[in-house]
Amino acid sequence: MTNLPWNRHHIISLADFIPAEYDSILQTALSFQGVLARRTKKVPTLQGQVVANLFFEPSTRTRSSFELAAKRLSADTLNFSPGSSSLTKGETILDTAKTYLAMGTDLMVIRHSGSGVPATIALEMDRLGVGVGVLNAGDGQHEHPSQALLDLLTLCNDLNPEQPSIEDLRGKKVAIVGDILHSRVARSNLWSLTACGAEVHLAAPPTLLPKAFLEAFSAPLITPTGQTIERKVFVHWQLLPALENADFVMALRLQKERMSGHLLPSLREYHQQFGITRDRLKHCAPNVKILHPGPTNRGVEITSDLMDDPKLSLVSKQVASGVAVRMALLYLMGGAKH
Amino acid sequence: MTNLPWNRHHIISLADFIPAEYDSILQTALSFQGVLARRTKKVPTLQGQVVANLFFEPSTRTRSSFELAAKRLSADTLNFSPGSSSLTKGETILDTAKTYLAMGTDLMVIRHSGSGVPATIALEMDRLGVGVGVLNAGDGQHEHPSQALLDLLTLCNDLNPEQPSIEDLRGKKVAIVGDILHSRVARSNLWSLTACGAEVHLAAPPTLLPKAFLEAFSAPLITPTGQTIERKVFVHWQLLPALENADFVMALRLQKERMSGHLLPSLREYHQQFGITRDRLKHCAPNVKILHPGPTNRGVEITSDLMDDPKLSLVSKQVASGVAVRMALLYLMGGAKH
Amino acid sequence: MTNLPWNRHHIISLADFIPAEYDSILQTALSFQGVLARRTKKVPTLQGQVVANLFFEPSTRTRSSFELAAKRLSADTLNFSPGSSSLTKGETILDTAKTYLAMGTDLMVIRHSGSGVPATIALEMDRLGVGVGVLNAGDGQHEHPSQALLDLLTLCNDLNPEQPSIEDLRGKKVAIVGDILHSRVARSNLWSLTACGAEVHLAAPPTLLPKAFLEAFSAPLITPTGQTIERKVFVHWQLLPALENADFVMALRLQKERMSGHLLPSLREYHQQFGITRDRLKHCAPNVKILHPGPTNRGVEITSDLMDDPKLSLVSKQVASGVAVRMALLYLMGGAKH
Repeated sequence: MTNLPWNRHHIISLADFIPAEYDSILQTALSFQGVLARRTKKVPTLQGQVVANLFFEPSTRTRSSFELAAKRLSADTLNFSPGSSSLTKGETILDTAKTYLAMGTDLMVIRHSGSGVPATIALEMDRLGVGVGVLNAGDGQHEHPSQALLDLLTLCNDLNPEQPSIEDLRGKKVAIVGDILHSRVARSNLWSLTACGAEVHLAAPPTLLPKAFLEAFSAPLITPTGQTIERKVFVHWQLLPALENADFVMALRLQKERMSGHLLPSLREYHQQFGITRDRLKHCAPNVKILHPGPTNRGVEITSDLMDDPKLSLVSKQVASGVAVRMALLYLMGGAKH
Repeated sequence: MTNLPWNRHHIISLADFIPAEYDSILQTALSFQGVLARRTKKVPTLQGQVVANLFFEPSTRTRSSFELAAKRLSADTLNFSPGSSSLTKGETILDTAKTYLAMGTDLMVIRHSGSGVPATIALEMDRLGVGVGVLNAGDGQHEHPSQALLDLLTLCNDLNPEQPSIEDLRGKKVAIVGDILHSRVARSNLWSLTACGAEVHLAAPPTLLPKAFLEAFSAPLITPTGQTIERKVFVHWQLLPALENADFVMALRLQKERMSGHLLPSLREYHQQFGITRDRLKHCAPNVKILHPGPTNRGVEITSDLMDDPKLSLVSKQVASGVAVRMALLYLMGGAKH
Repeated sequence: MTNLPWNRHHIISLADFIPAEYDSILQTALSFQGVLARRTKKVPTLQGQVVANLFFEPSTRTRSSFELAAKRLSADTLNFSPGSSSLTKGETILDTAKTYLAMGTDLMVIRHSGSGVPATIALEMDRLGVGVGVLNAGDGQHEHPSQALLDLLTLCNDLNPEQPSIEDLRGKKVAIVGDILHSRVARSNLWSLTACGAEVHLAAPPTLLPKAFLEAFSAPLITPTGQTIERKVFVHWQLLPALENADFVMALRLQKERMSGHLLPSLREYHQQFGITRDRLKHCAPNVKILHPGPTNRGVEITSDLMDDPKLSLVSKQVASGVAVRMALLYLMGGAKH
């Protein structure tokens, strides 16, 4: 794992990640998957280091996944949750972050309902010159990099279990279906999948997928060595064109709060038009697999039987990949400090 | 500890536990009590293993006790609490359990307000063939096995401190007083105490102890070797017949919510009829001891001075036994996986 | 660290601490600062011991600081928070403490909104003869010893970075500004600073600083060897006399709840009269430094730019000192048990 190219202090957005970086993460995560297959699933990599999980927005699965990743690297963890905090006493977010910094935090994992909060904290850490890395664990409707990276690991493991590589994604068709507009998961996946050469097809009602959404992805990715990678993204206001010959279908969680905003008529109508069903999967490639970032509204985004079909659903593998990928990210960032 | 008979993946109910199993748990717990008496109260038994404490119902003492037991076995722990969870986003309980499974959980400790939830999760784990053990930490009004087992350890330690054995329970009279109908503690204790040959006398007002309650215990326990053990359970709608010559009195917590259900006239009247007082203990055996699963309503189930009398109260010893017994259970179940 | 004088089981109040004890804490904390400067910031001192953090009042920074201190001493930690606890079921505080005792807790760190709760629990532990130490992490408006002790470390480190000593505090002028009446931080600092020979000048509106406040500090401190130390405390109802030639200015957090009690006209008027600004600092000694226990109301107690000026503000150093001081306290108390 020692010669992989890596020089980021922070992981905030995947917008400028290049294929070599995705490869570094993939290979590091694969080696940690080996650790996790052992009886003693622990390595001393971050012994004596402190990982602070600052989850200003509640979370079970992502927080537990990061906590477990940190513990398996032998780090000590500090957990911040907003309920019992100084935030209710009017403290600013930056002051909270600086408090955890002063206590001796080495890596900060940050989730916040406001887009841009992890970036702001990362900037402040750089300004202070303290060498502390910030990892965005989901910020508003902006990005959720570790989710997209665990999806990447899941896809590569599925495509080529013997020797997974980001090369296997080239030319694959991935359909992302659902509330694209409000989804940080969709945004991060768009960056990673297109950078690795996959075609991404978005499907949603127009209220959840405005034409302007595409603009962000119209400029190609240019690597330091001058390589130009066009980002292949397509927008569909109907489901079937996105599913046509798709190798993977990623259903997004539908926030029920969207209903009250008049962006959707009803859950039932959404399911009729965009729900993933066994019947509709017939339009996909023969070996199609389904992904979902969870938690799932069974019967809305996807039917319950598909979720539980081990031949079709990669959902459990996504969760398992999450621990390995987060170990990889903490390892790579932790290595950047010292 | 290596040759004790044990072949359960899950601990959900004590209904079919046989004396040899209680003995295995007792002997294992006793050896861990030895560990806990040392300055460094830790063993590497579950190093690198993950114990997930999924407490869908809030709890301080049971959760802390399991957490400490897991840490003293050197396991990593994941704590789930319902407040900040995906459950509020509509995720099913099985999906939550499967998420923790996919993260790499080796043992699940589950508390839920619904009777049967741990059993359902255990069935799903078996169906998936993943070898993960489920431990019921209290489900609705069904069972609370680890509480009954810590009571067993407490009683045996009290009866024969030099060489505790479940044999010492044979023929002993144990009175259980209070809200039997709604008590998972009473149910689990009924299974364990009667299987070990103790006589259990239940005392409560008829609204909290219907005659039909006895039916579950009318069938004898038949062991794999064909031994038949009659379960000796007696119902009393008054306190004194239960206390008469009792060796142990277990007061149950009275849920104040029962009042609103018109099952009880008032706390004061309950205390007058069924409260444990120093005076009433004179009816018991000379060396009678008191147990209470906690938390206590002092002055309702039991007078405050009795709770604090170290010659009479085993309450602190119950709590201490809890850590040793839970270490034993996690150890025995953890051994089943590998 | 082995020959320092120390014989306290509990740390509840600093009222009778003598200079030799402050020196023991300072020297122990300094040696832990050395540990914290290493890559692996961990020592095996409390391996296998259990530190219970019983925070009956919510807290982020103090709880995290104690948790990290305990983990860096390799202790296991148990966290109690009132939300999901048996307190809501009517359990008394003493019963909660005794439950954690029975589980095997070695040291208890207690925060409570009621003045005197940690002292009551410490008395009970002594009565039970269990050798468990109690550390007051803030009780009502009474005391917050670990905060004053981290302030002491911060001041000594600032005055003499090469070889910090409590001797350096002698004759220094420290201004404490703000809601003195309700502040446990002010009370604990008054005891420690005056015992070490500093002059403390209190500044607040009369509603937050009654004349009678001084009476507690009118008696001198008499050490076991018969040394008499006058406590030099001065009261000011205006800001400037307190700032005049001050070496340190400690701004206290203004609880907004005080407004509704008619103790203050408005935050704006408070800031105009008692807010710390760059202009007003000109009255202080040339190398004046600012402290604040946090969380800060920027623009009320102190202007935002002063908080962030690394030449003036010791706020981050206070937080960092907190971990080292709390390691020292747990170490000294833990040593008392065995």
